Amino acid sequence: MKHLNLLLIFLTLILFSCSEQINQKSEPLPSWNEGKNKQSIINFVNEVTDEKSPNFVKPGDRIATFDNDGCLWSEQPYYFQLQFALDRVKVLAPEHPEWNDNPLFKAVLENDIKTVLSFGEHGLLQLVMTTHAGMTTEEFAQIVKEWINTAKHPKTNKLYKEMVFQPMLELLDYLRANGFKTFIVSGGGIDFMRPWTEEVYGIPSDQVVGSSGKVKFEIREGQPVLVKLPEINFIDDKEGKPVGIHQFIGKRPIAAFGNSDGDLQMLQYTAAGEGKRLMLYVHHRDAEREWAYDRESHIGRLNKGLDEANKKGWIVVDMKNDWKVIYPFEMK
Amino acid sequence: MKHLNLLLIFLTLILFSCSEQINQKSEPLPSWNEGKNKQSIINFVNEVTDEKSPNFVKPGDRIATFDNDGCLWSEQPYYFQLQFALDRVKVLAPEHPEWNDNPLFKAVLENDIKTVLSFGEHGLLQLVMTTHAGMTTEEFAQIVKEWINTAKHPKTNKLYKEMVFQPMLELLDYLRANGFKTFIVSGGGIDFMRPWTEEVYGIPSDQVVGSSGKVKFEIREGQPVLVKLPEINFIDDKEGKPVGIHQFIGKRPIAAFGNSDGDLQMLQYTAAGEGKRLMLYVHHRDAEREWAYDRESHIGRLNKGLDEANKKGWIVVDMKNDWKVIYPFEMK
Repeated sequence: MKHLNLLLIFLTLILFSCSEQINQKSEPLPSWNEGKNKQSIINFVNEVTDEKSPNFVKPGDRIATFDNDGCLWSEQPYYFQLQFALDRVKVLAPEHPEWNDNPLFKAVLENDIKTVLSFGEHGLLQLVMTTHAGMTTEEFAQIVKEWINTAKHPKTNKLYKEMVFQPMLELLDYLRANGFKTFIVSGGGIDFMRPWTEEVYGIPSDQVVGSSGKVKFEIREGQPVLVKLPEINFIDDKEGKPVGIHQFIGKRPIAAFGNSDGDLQMLQYTAAGEGKRLMLYVHHRDAEREWAYDRESHIGRLNKGLDEANKKGWIVVDMKNDWKVIYPFEMK
Repeated sequence: MKHLNLLLIFLTLILFSCSEQINQKSEPLPSWNEGKNKQSIINFVNEVTDEKSPNFVKPGDRIATFDNDGCLWSEQPYYFQLQFALDRVKVLAPEHPEWNDNPLFKAVLENDIKTVLSFGEHGLLQLVMTTHAGMTTEEFAQIVKEWINTAKHPKTNKLYKEMVFQPMLELLDYLRANGFKTFIVSGGGIDFMRPWTEEVYGIPSDQVVGSSGKVKFEIREGQPVLVKLPEINFIDDKEGKPVGIHQFIGKRPIAAFGNSDGDLQMLQYTAAGEGKRLMLYVHHRDAEREWAYDRESHIGRLNKGLDEANKKGWIVVDMKNDWKVIYPFEMK
């Protein structure tokens, strides 16, 4: 009898560890305030995972795609990847005395961001090309890892990777616990995101879709390596997002999450599939805890997308009212 | 006591269902003959999954990449995708009377394969472009599904999807049971493979890397769709394979499987990483049960790769001696 009891305890322990996943379902999205938006998400998940529902979707087809900048982490006062590029220019400057005669690079070195931004998209592209090419893919990944683990945001004085949205982390977990495969589909650089998305979001590198430069296979000192070239391969933004989804994932998502007009085509493409769909925009309306911007912003503009979301009844998350906290560090 | 026993039985059942994965390890690769090659595979898997081994690799980094044509399924007398293209030309011919004046298309319609092949790579590309573009991605997937579920190989009179290698299916299962993520990295068309790789190999669409044409986002009759264009996007062969691995997977594989010189760079790239690595060539040496070809073959030539495999001590599987069966249908 004593042995039986011990065995029973042992088996019960195993049962509990087995049912851990099931238990996770019980209290989803704790950092989301109760209300229409939270309930819509939960209703959607319940419906597509209920085998008796006409809208049931088998696990392999439960594809959810997330924009990164402004959707999973902040993007103000400008994209964090731009800050990375600016920091790299400063690190590399001693090897490039000629940059002092280049008005764009000179402005970077003088911390004159206004002038940097005045060069527009072409200027930013030039900065990215210069700082994201000329090394092997593995060397670049190492540089990104060092930056993401040390560089701090000027406003919060927190690491950039700490400025991710707690409610979105919970949403990623909740979807995965319900058999979804979660992907990033971002205009940001794929090689800039992959070194840290697994640690920060639980999203492995092969589930990250993004913009990319060309790479070239080479044998260097007898070792095969991939060298990053200063040449665009793919821009994963606007019409590029559904294209990227097709090329990388090969299935139409049933749920898509964004925050700007750059995500509109991804949400349209998701909405147009058969059965129940979830389209969600994160609306930045919290000037105190994060930032407030939409139709007029140069970074993360949400204008056409907001109109379409309202017209089509997509979920528009109000960061101020829907989210109890913004960042994980607020909870400590 | 009775209730306790019932509970005990219940808990034991759950314990067994939990340990199912562990049990799967007990008898790996049943269709592989005992010998050096089978043992090398098992040794490798044991070593990278043993936490106490200096060569332990954490599950997320256990990336295994497989070529498709000639590695997971047969490829003779010519790539099965070419047969698909030829079949499509015949289906589409009534709408294209002009093809009767085109020597390439005329040869296809007259089943004159020798002439078709005499047009070389350029001719084949023209056939693929013509038959793989002009429709939406979803329409094309439907066409592929219908073909793969009906078209039969002239030699075996079996469906093409039945001409997959039983020992390789077991290898895929074995690796996955040991925490590997399995990918296809093939010169074949990504849109041609994805509609059936999940059913046939257990590999979901987002783990299929291949050659691709460009696609364009369009709103057709109010519906967002992706239209396939007759324009090359990416050729996933030779130097393209490590490039494709980087762009799609973002990690260097620790195990790679191929059968031709087109896979050499993938195997080199895999071999060059740190720690224990597994590089394996399937050598077609079974003229009776499959086909025998290597250094001189126009399809799936294995020449440089065979030299390098021998020099570097990579595994070279002899289909005749290493495999008990070739196809799953031989077992019925």
